[in-house]
Amino acid sequence: MLIVMKSGSTREDVDRVRDVIQGLGYESQALPVAERLAVRVSEYAREPSCELFETLPGVDLVLPISHPVRKVGRLARSEDTVLRFGSREVGSGGFTLVAGPCAVENEEQILAVARSVRDAGADMLRGGAYKPRTSPYDFQGLGEEGLKLLALARKETGLPVITEAVDEASVELAEEYADVIQIGARNMQNFALLKRVGRSRRPLLLKRGMSATLEDLLLSAEYLLDAGNPNVILCERGIRSFSDHSRYTLDLSIVPVLERLTHLPVFVDPSHASGHRSSVAPLARAAMVAGADGVMIEVHPDPSLALCDGPQSLRPEEFAALAASLKSLAPFMAEQRETVP
Amino acid sequence: MLIVMKSGSTREDVDRVRDVIQGLGYESQALPVAERLAVRVSEYAREPSCELFETLPGVDLVLPISHPVRKVGRLARSEDTVLRFGSREVGSGGFTLVAGPCAVENEEQILAVARSVRDAGADMLRGGAYKPRTSPYDFQGLGEEGLKLLALARKETGLPVITEAVDEASVELAEEYADVIQIGARNMQNFALLKRVGRSRRPLLLKRGMSATLEDLLLSAEYLLDAGNPNVILCERGIRSFSDHSRYTLDLSIVPVLERLTHLPVFVDPSHASGHRSSVAPLARAAMVAGADGVMIEVHPDPSLALCDGPQSLRPEEFAALAASLKSLAPFMAEQRETVP
Amino acid sequence: MLIVMKSGSTREDVDRVRDVIQGLGYESQALPVAERLAVRVSEYAREPSCELFETLPGVDLVLPISHPVRKVGRLARSEDTVLRFGSREVGSGGFTLVAGPCAVENEEQILAVARSVRDAGADMLRGGAYKPRTSPYDFQGLGEEGLKLLALARKETGLPVITEAVDEASVELAEEYADVIQIGARNMQNFALLKRVGRSRRPLLLKRGMSATLEDLLLSAEYLLDAGNPNVILCERGIRSFSDHSRYTLDLSIVPVLERLTHLPVFVDPSHASGHRSSVAPLARAAMVAGADGVMIEVHPDPSLALCDGPQSLRPEEFAALAASLKSLAPFMAEQRETVP
Amino acid sequence: MLIVMKSGSTREDVDRVRDVIQGLGYESQALPVAERLAVRVSEYAREPSCELFETLPGVDLVLPISHPVRKVGRLARSEDTVLRFGSREVGSGGFTLVAGPCAVENEEQILAVARSVRDAGADMLRGGAYKPRTSPYDFQGLGEEGLKLLALARKETGLPVITEAVDEASVELAEEYADVIQIGARNMQNFALLKRVGRSRRPLLLKRGMSATLEDLLLSAEYLLDAGNPNVILCERGIRSFSDHSRYTLDLSIVPVLERLTHLPVFVDPSHASGHRSSVAPLARAAMVAGADGVMIEVHPDPSLALCDGPQSLRPEEFAALAASLKSLAPFMAEQRETVP
Repeated sequence: MLIVMKSGSTREDVDRVRDVIQGLGYESQALPVAERLAVRVSEYAREPSCELFETLPGVDLVLPISHPVRKVGRLARSEDTVLRFGSREVGSGGFTLVAGPCAVENEEQILAVARSVRDAGADMLRGGAYKPRTSPYDFQGLGEEGLKLLALARKETGLPVITEAVDEASVELAEEYADVIQIGARNMQNFALLKRVGRSRRPLLLKRGMSATLEDLLLSAEYLLDAGNPNVILCERGIRSFSDHSRYTLDLSIVPVLERLTHLPVFVDPSHASGHRSSVAPLARAAMVAGADGVMIEVHPDPSLALCDGPQSLRPEEFAALAASLKSLAPFMAEQRETVP
Repeated sequence: MLIVMKSGSTREDVDRVRDVIQGLGYESQALPVAERLAVRVSEYAREPSCELFETLPGVDLVLPISHPVRKVGRLARSEDTVLRFGSREVGSGGFTLVAGPCAVENEEQILAVARSVRDAGADMLRGGAYKPRTSPYDFQGLGEEGLKLLALARKETGLPVITEAVDEASVELAEEYADVIQIGARNMQNFALLKRVGRSRRPLLLKRGMSATLEDLLLSAEYLLDAGNPNVILCERGIRSFSDHSRYTLDLSIVPVLERLTHLPVFVDPSHASGHRSSVAPLARAAMVAGADGVMIEVHPDPSLALCDGPQSLRPEEFAALAASLKSLAPFMAEQRETVP
Repeated sequence: MLIVMKSGSTREDVDRVRDVIQGLGYESQALPVAERLAVRVSEYAREPSCELFETLPGVDLVLPISHPVRKVGRLARSEDTVLRFGSREVGSGGFTLVAGPCAVENEEQILAVARSVRDAGADMLRGGAYKPRTSPYDFQGLGEEGLKLLALARKETGLPVITEAVDEASVELAEEYADVIQIGARNMQNFALLKRVGRSRRPLLLKRGMSATLEDLLLSAEYLLDAGNPNVILCERGIRSFSDHSRYTLDLSIVPVLERLTHLPVFVDPSHASGHRSSVAPLARAAMVAGADGVMIEVHPDPSLALCDGPQSLRPEEFAALAASLKSLAPFMAEQRETVP
Repeated sequence: MLIVMKSGSTREDVDRVRDVIQGLGYESQALPVAERLAVRVSEYAREPSCELFETLPGVDLVLPISHPVRKVGRLARSEDTVLRFGSREVGSGGFTLVAGPCAVENEEQILAVARSVRDAGADMLRGGAYKPRTSPYDFQGLGEEGLKLLALARKETGLPVITEAVDEASVELAEEYADVIQIGARNMQNFALLKRVGRSRRPLLLKRGMSATLEDLLLSAEYLLDAGNPNVILCERGIRSFSDHSRYTLDLSIVPVLERLTHLPVFVDPSHASGHRSSVAPLARAAMVAGADGVMIEVHPDPSLALCDGPQSLRPEEFAALAASLKSLAPFMAEQRETVP
């Protein structure tokens, strides 16, 4: 950290800054920068908070040098984190296709979707039993009954199951019935929940909040790793912007940036981001060639009757076409990974 | 709800739409609109979800007519909701001044702040014992110890206490020690938490999420009223935008809109929104004359040593000047309320 | 257009609305909608402005039914607009690769870039002679001298040239020296300039403004077609959002939406959007598979010495790798276009 | 400027950075920062662009120290810029009330508005003769005829006139007929226009673009002062955000920040920002107590018949009530300015 003093700052101002640094257990060094003075905090790896200095008299700028991210960063671990589900791997260079309905509605629906997406080539099944809904009057999910149906679908199809948990009780149930516990966008900064699932033995999927910066996302993942759970997938699902032609603005350019900064696998959810069925396939392909490790796609046997998010759900035959299209892109991406450093 | 069909839609398309409407228990009526047909859903008060129709063949537009908000709206209750704390009232036309540190740090700090803000004219004391922090490595609050210190400060000063709860356990403790339970911006759509505090006997303060639309905010409040708790204060605290001169963008123009749409009191938190001490007083005054029922101001005896949010905290003497300034504006606002319809 | 009256509206209110409609030269019809009345404006193709009715007494909602876009929409012209430059076509199903420096700096630089991008497979050359720069103290471009150098580079390489014009004088010069006139993001709503280039005989490339909605973009293109110029390419180049890991947020999901709504070709500029060299190739590939008709890529022989936008410019060898990568994706996209309706 | 090298950077990397610095005519100095090296560029007042260094091998961070703003900053001039129009002053501590219709429509309309706002206490008259409209099919203004009507209204009422210019031709006419030339939000980065009006002898009002950062706004003003025109008023008029309850999001917290950073007067336009008549008065009052030097208010004799922006226009009697309300706040603000440093 470098603390740059104002032009007119006094010797006393500089001493006060250095006293605070010392009081926090760091060492400091005074440096001339332009016609002004700067104070350097010596330890690089873990810096004190910038805020502590910004309000001291005479201080002009506080420039952090180290990054607040630790365990999720490439500095902490250079090789990619890989998750294994039986013979399936996530994050090892292949592409993971997750599909399923927004919400589990009944046995017939979830089994129909599960079979159709497995047949089309999906690698995992998604489905919500606890649905965070903007309105209290909307369908809130089947709860434990939904989890049991997901477990049944897994037994029928062999597909590992991803499902969302929203509190202590649903985490415990999800641990029992599911393979991956999802933390939804609206709970990305529900730190009590992050601490709880960070202690879970189940792999986690952490969706980016719709107002989360890159750093916010990485620090929420840091909560998970810091609590002891190394098996975390990040998921971009669209952010809030003024742009009103899609439900959220899919921030696809975060994918190559995350690839560079973190060793965790990165998924993309084009269904929730766009909100329009006809945009899902183009955006899923775009996510793949931008370097994502997987996509999550909503599929419903009859979207017009879906209890939740019908307009963005693909019909089974549309999903099959998308899956085939992604499969035909796979050799291209495999080649890219080899030739491009 | 009005469902407008495409120009080339068929008789069959229209029948299918009307069948779905009937299947949901509503009646319908076909209307000619321009050279096209429209189908009207008859019951006004509670409409089916638009999404159910948007994907049916032949449908062009689905136009909702009723508003999804029920209990928090002026239609449900035209007179203002008023909260009472001893002789103090919130929402009855006066202006409530809430002040205190971001986080409770120790007995000396909280008592010093509590006394100074009471002497300056504050109506309530704020202070965090459970702090949602972006990084797991930042100070997370003193927990129950912090709540006990807040209760002590209340005993010393007579000021009612507002404090944040973040999960089941902290809600139970906050119910025991505090007068108002705050739901923070990051938990505005933590629906499990909303359902829990909606069952609390304590009044609630619900902060707007940084990516929440007006409707999102009202519907989160709807969760609270729907669960049985009518004593809810809304609080604007800044949204995420590209504008980078302040920490968040204070969306002050939501105040007159909320005033019109809901009977709940509306507070503004200029401290978290701006992130800069020097902007707090101008924005607090602006909130008052825009019609807010109160403001929440961060105050710290020595901001440069604050464990959290120092740069936005006022020093006690700065807060006293702001409180005096707001008091001198009060007669003006009282007159406004009488003369302006 | 449908005008929905409030529950308590009077006969007089309805009559007043119908009088205004008649005064504007339209016919109207009263309809019962739910327990309320609605007034329908009869002519579909061109509606009066909604604003005219929103403020009349008794009016609750004004619902537009027709879309403000006319000439750029698929309704006005269902087949794709195709631009031809010698043997090259834009918008006819192939993929156009535009490359070149942000700014023309000198003869050596522009010729070196032009030759290298032609050899790598670029279809057109881009380069700025009039640069809109945020600061008056930054390099503003070489002006006419830059245009002459671009014309020289075209002569040397055979590549058609795209360059930006910013006012009357530069439009006239660009018409003389260049093949396509670009209107930059900051001038997307400079309507005086739009009217001027709308009368030009040269094809146009219109960049989306960083705060432009889909409708804003289409209506700016409407200015161009309405002024008589049918040869317009639209270009997504990133919007302003809170997300700070990239310079702008590339809104790639607008591509399939534009594809659906307009017959004009759509390009994407990942260089300006991301601002980081390492993200350009993944985003260019993503643009291609999302359905864009082309991309614009910044290339500089030595980005560290570029007078403008160095950090986002590819080195010639990096561009060659990207061009090869896009070429290997082309058969995939050709197949997609055939199999997917 | 401070350039921080990566941990593994070589002596050669550092030398290359220092060579580039020298080549640009600056001096440099190597400094140890934490376990890494930094290079300091010696001249403080005008730094080279950060971008030039960000891409050099071995460079980790480039930290600017000086601010790109020169002539509009408080460093360049500490006392406030004051504009004088006869006996009226803008920026000298009073509050300027600008009012008038969005567009000049005809003689009767503009004279009626001008008289009513003068009688209510307005200081200046606003009215558009050249209207930048999103759609080419909307009313574009009366052109020179409108300017003549504004001049007539000035003659009748004595109010100085503010009107927008959009290109070379309209600037010349506005110079002839008006007292202040407005550059609209959509032209804030139309640098050709800025250079032209920067050479005008008329005072200027520069509206903030809807995607402009604080720095963008200041640098656009810098174009004006750099071209020789020192008489510039800045105007906040709302930015684009996701928040959809108002037309734009009024970023009122920029007011105290501008007050701190620049000597130029700052106006606020709550009419265009909110888009709703009922929010205009609360936001105008809020602007005043936040420290703005003036507000611009749209007034129309019959908003329901306005050719432009009717829903946000106040009726004359509503404007008179607002003007009275602002006048009664004036003594409060005068006292504030004296007591608060």
